[in-house]
Amino acid sequence: MSDLIFYTNPQSRGRTARFMLEELGVPYETVILGYDGDMKTPEYLAINLMGKVPTIRHGDRIVTEVAAICAYLADAFPEAGLAPAHDDRADYYRWLFFAAGPVESAIMDNYRKLEPDAEQQVMIGYGTFSRTIAALDVAVGKNTWIAGDRFSAADVYAGSQIDWPMKFGMLEPTPGLVAYVERLRARPAYIRAAEIDG
Amino acid sequence: MSDLIFYTNPQSRGRTARFMLEELGVPYETVILGYDGDMKTPEYLAINLMGKVPTIRHGDRIVTEVAAICAYLADAFPEAGLAPAHDDRADYYRWLFFAAGPVESAIMDNYRKLEPDAEQQVMIGYGTFSRTIAALDVAVGKNTWIAGDRFSAADVYAGSQIDWPMKFGMLEPTPGLVAYVERLRARPAYIRAAEIDG
Repeated sequence: MSDLIFYTNPQSRGRTARFMLEELGVPYETVILGYDGDMKTPEYLAINLMGKVPTIRHGDRIVTEVAAICAYLADAFPEAGLAPAHDDRADYYRWLFFAAGPVESAIMDNYRKLEPDAEQQVMIGYGTFSRTIAALDVAVGKNTWIAGDRFSAADVYAGSQIDWPMKFGMLEPTPGLVAYVERLRARPAYIRAAEIDG
Repeated sequence: MSDLIFYTNPQSRGRTARFMLEELGVPYETVILGYDGDMKTPEYLAINLMGKVPTIRHGDRIVTEVAAICAYLADAFPEAGLAPAHDDRADYYRWLFFAAGPVESAIMDNYRKLEPDAEQQVMIGYGTFSRTIAALDVAVGKNTWIAGDRFSAADVYAGSQIDWPMKFGMLEPTPGLVAYVERLRARPAYIRAAEIDG
């Protein structure tokens, strides 16, 4: 049994975690959980009280939330070179958290046809959908990858936060977003992950 | 001029970044931006296209998003001891991203009196408000701090994601959440930050 266990369902955000695991290039064991109750057993709820996938178990450590899984694995397996040095993580954290917070909220509101009014925009972190996506568009156009010239776990996560909504018609393609996602889709790990979950 | 500049407004989430800066114990310069246009000048939009505060400038690096600011500063100033070792960041990242994603979304939906229906719960990462807050309640009750026995940047951020909504009546207090927030409020850096912005 591997000390790295991946709980997932191929029809979930677990696909992004799979992409990250394939980028690492280390062995891991996959446990597929169905949506018909597997995620709500007492055993699984003890691991993830949210009753969701994906979850990673690494030895006795548990990580949930796709972005956290990407950040954790990048640090836990430094030989894969998927996290910048400590003193060079400004863009790395900036776009990881921007993708996990404002981008996620903006896309989910847009999917529900909600646009925060002027008063709500003060409270709601992302402000408006169009401004959030415009900021993302600029971010991915600055360099080859979102945190500079080197591919990192921030690309696995932020890139997937663009790739998936675009596939589902929830995010209007722009030339910059499309070019970035094309670079992502050409990664051997992306292709392997898609084949495994496909 | 300090090489660490903090753009903020005392009536914003910048208060959480201030708490983090005070935990660091290093000198920094504060630039207060008003809501009457200061955040939309070309100069400031070049720093943060979202036109929001807080933003940190550290040398030539820019960081936005409160959670990213906390994570970045913890790594950039390791002598403050606010981030765990690389191989011990499971809970640290898990709860940082849980607070930035599901908790933020759940509280903002609840504030707008929205509850995702069964179909939306599949798409929307947090599922339901009550399940999200229950998971948070368990997380803060396991140890003194959210990532173990040591206080970390994850407490500054996740703790503030509990503290602020509770103050605004947007989050029902539970004994566990209250006890955790009380520990947070007793931090000298929390008290100093509140005095400065107060």
